[in-house]
Amino acid sequence: MRITIDHSAKTPVYLQIKQAILAAIRDGKLVPGARLLATRELAQQLGVNRSTVAMAYDELLADGVVESFVGRGTFVARQTLAEVTALEGRASRQPPNRKMVWEGVFSERAQSPVVESLLDLYQVSTLRDVISFSGSFPDAGSFPTRDFRNSLHFAERTLGDEVYRYGPVAGYERLREYLAQRMREGGSDVTAENIIVTSGSQQALDLIARALISPGDTVAIENPTYPGAMTAFALAGARLLPIPVDEDGLCVEVLENVLRVQRPKLVYVVPSFQNPTGACLSWERRRRLLALAREHNLPIVEDDYGSHLRFDGDALPHLKALDDTEHVIYVSNFSKSLLPGLRIGWCAAARPVITRLMAFKQNSDITTSPLLQSALWDFCRRKRYDAHLQKIRPIYHARRDVMLKRLEADFPSGTVWTRPAGGLFLWVTLPTALDATELLYQVRQQGVVFSRGRLFYSDNPKRNTLRLSYGHVTLEQIERGMRVIGTTAKAMLGRGASRAAERFHTQTVPLV
Amino acid sequence: MRITIDHSAKTPVYLQIKQAILAAIRDGKLVPGARLLATRELAQQLGVNRSTVAMAYDELLADGVVESFVGRGTFVARQTLAEVTALEGRASRQPPNRKMVWEGVFSERAQSPVVESLLDLYQVSTLRDVISFSGSFPDAGSFPTRDFRNSLHFAERTLGDEVYRYGPVAGYERLREYLAQRMREGGSDVTAENIIVTSGSQQALDLIARALISPGDTVAIENPTYPGAMTAFALAGARLLPIPVDEDGLCVEVLENVLRVQRPKLVYVVPSFQNPTGACLSWERRRRLLALAREHNLPIVEDDYGSHLRFDGDALPHLKALDDTEHVIYVSNFSKSLLPGLRIGWCAAARPVITRLMAFKQNSDITTSPLLQSALWDFCRRKRYDAHLQKIRPIYHARRDVMLKRLEADFPSGTVWTRPAGGLFLWVTLPTALDATELLYQVRQQGVVFSRGRLFYSDNPKRNTLRLSYGHVTLEQIERGMRVIGTTAKAMLGRGASRAAERFHTQTVPLV
Repeated sequence: MRITIDHSAKTPVYLQIKQAILAAIRDGKLVPGARLLATRELAQQLGVNRSTVAMAYDELLADGVVESFVGRGTFVARQTLAEVTALEGRASRQPPNRKMVWEGVFSERAQSPVVESLLDLYQVSTLRDVISFSGSFPDAGSFPTRDFRNSLHFAERTLGDEVYRYGPVAGYERLREYLAQRMREGGSDVTAENIIVTSGSQQALDLIARALISPGDTVAIENPTYPGAMTAFALAGARLLPIPVDEDGLCVEVLENVLRVQRPKLVYVVPSFQNPTGACLSWERRRRLLALAREHNLPIVEDDYGSHLRFDGDALPHLKALDDTEHVIYVSNFSKSLLPGLRIGWCAAARPVITRLMAFKQNSDITTSPLLQSALWDFCRRKRYDAHLQKIRPIYHARRDVMLKRLEADFPSGTVWTRPAGGLFLWVTLPTALDATELLYQVRQQGVVFSRGRLFYSDNPKRNTLRLSYGHVTLEQIERGMRVIGTTAKAMLGRGASRAAERFHTQTVPLV
Repeated sequence: MRITIDHSAKTPVYLQIKQAILAAIRDGKLVPGARLLATRELAQQLGVNRSTVAMAYDELLADGVVESFVGRGTFVARQTLAEVTALEGRASRQPPNRKMVWEGVFSERAQSPVVESLLDLYQVSTLRDVISFSGSFPDAGSFPTRDFRNSLHFAERTLGDEVYRYGPVAGYERLREYLAQRMREGGSDVTAENIIVTSGSQQALDLIARALISPGDTVAIENPTYPGAMTAFALAGARLLPIPVDEDGLCVEVLENVLRVQRPKLVYVVPSFQNPTGACLSWERRRRLLALAREHNLPIVEDDYGSHLRFDGDALPHLKALDDTEHVIYVSNFSKSLLPGLRIGWCAAARPVITRLMAFKQNSDITTSPLLQSALWDFCRRKRYDAHLQKIRPIYHARRDVMLKRLEADFPSGTVWTRPAGGLFLWVTLPTALDATELLYQVRQQGVVFSRGRLFYSDNPKRNTLRLSYGHVTLEQIERGMRVIGTTAKAMLGRGASRAAERFHTQTVPLV
């Protein structure tokens, strides 16, 4: 028998030896009862450690392929060829007994309904053959891939191995400075020291939740709101305190009443093009919200995923720009306005907050890719980000307009919808007889999907609501898809819609 | 007074109006007592919404720059020029009163000693002017930047906008398949379905901790061990149960005794080139550990940061390769063996574990950059990763050898050290009279740093220990730096070292 060892192979040497012996038995070169070389001899012959050969023999022994007798040696056992063949290529010799029982092993938080909903929803689908109004994805056709490639090359060439090392926990210094300067231009009083770069704004929300929420704390949130914020706070142990949303955003006067009797740990708010309604928090409410924060020493988490996506009317100031008392923790990203796949967002807040977030960031993933951060910085300083915003705003504007036109033309009377001045989606409330889940089931069969409104509620979901994203659909797809939804809704109303409303409640749709 | 509005500017329009009025007052174009245009008139003149002008007036009013009288209008107030000048450019008109008080607002976990230690240690330094044996960084001079650039270009060019979209939560499909295949070649029984790609192995540890640990659960860990694992488990609420390490790795027989009286939720182990000792878990202990896992339905988290960095002797099988009962959760990455800045690692485990990790991954950062994942896949399938491993192993081998030589030659008698067969560092135990903190203080002044051993202990730290990394120092730096440490240690021993040992306990050094 000849065994050839390949030390550069990925298969461990002991396993190569085991496999060679199995092959020799299969090929009849080693017959039952034949004596194997002593470990020392074979080790010498192969130029490997004796313990390596011993490992191979141990495995064969445990598999029952060989037998060992003290003082006599190791011999090929008397078994059938089929048994050897079955063993070949298997690394381990334990019979598949005592399988790990995972039930009951997971943490309490892993068994929460939040995780169940995430398990249901995790398939952030890149649906190809359907017209999708679900997800809040930006227009992939407008991605500035070529410009960004230039910035990638620039970063690599000028920064060299730096971009492949571990970077600073708080982020690439020049990107932090750029972000701070940009925020100062918008009226916020921040420097690079107030900024931490994160892996998207989802990570910022998760870090904030872990740094601020103790189990049992209450978080005031809009109802409906962004599901990723609900999961971040809930998984940190928060109870969610839903505050209604109207056409002027969070109902601050309701929050004010709530604050008379409850003491939430923080309030989470999406002031611009609220997710999912598209509403903008009014000027008066912004000021009132800040006054409440000051009165109650209440941190505000401002999720600004999209104020830079305004295509209609004038900008309102960020809450952070109105905040000279350090109550606002500002969160934003480049996922909706530029490239989701960069996974780059940031958080701007008072220094005591930032230092805590840095600790949790280091624990979460140490640092965000310096290559992508430095390329993004280069892209921004060359004004390519501003140019991109100029380019995409009219695109989304036109898409929203067609959405509105089709809502007017194709949807059942009694349907109500929002008219967002920016962002990527609008919010539709159907006549109460209609159930969005049943509607989704019907239109899916015609190649159209959307996000059911119920996914966005922490309390008292309105089953006749839907979020329609226009970010990643063409004008033509909007015309066709909206007509499908509208005419299907009308038909359902016509034949008594509530009939089948209960039967479809586990559809998997994307969550972002 | 003429106001010019720039709608494309980043400064909000209301703020432009406010600033223009402040400027007009400063320049004497608007004098105290002058009446401002009604909001409706100015809005018409500027072509902006009336509410935008109202916002600007509101701010000026709150700042005391103008006065408003019902039915009469808004007038420039009687104040000094200096006051106006001070206000210019400030976005907010609230006096800096009622500043947010952050004390006591952070979560219980944010106030734990773990976070304090992270706050101390977060500066993952890229020290430039010193010889650094701290951190466990790979050799930046060997980074295959050019080859990786080719793979980046390939990914961009062939996959197009795909690499900039949100990717699947579990990771880029082809990378998962590659990783599964590679693990199968090493004897593990896994498919792509058993793999989740993470943002480095730190994220994998954090996700595992959150999915498995409920507050109060116990985690058996090596003592000393990797601090990032300690923080991940501790922040999920775990109590750490330290098990000693010797030259054959985790003392499995101690664990066995512990299991008779305690029931940890899982055991965390670094079988290859243990961090920080460099020890390898012996073949016998690997088998015994798996038998214990089966006996106690005990999950094993196998942190394999570096088995591919072996330069001496034959490979031992991964615990995962011996595991046909799904007890092992395997974690690995490309940070030590390729490029830390990619922030790509992975976890291989039974499917029930993977689905939970996917839920927590979505909550943590949704997905890891598809661009970097697909470029890495291309790099691997072109065999560039294997080529890189072939290239760097002898480099680390040579560095370790010089370390050993210098330990022999320069260090005080009574010093003991490990001889790792791979990986990036070794572990030194000085004569007990010496304190590594004091030694660090002394050698820093001579431009040399290392990691004090006490950072790696969860219990009963040995103050005379140090971890010396040879990953990112040249042979010449090793010669010089080790001589500095050795001769300084000898000198300290000579003059009675314990004298100053207490005075220096907050030095900031990197953690990885």
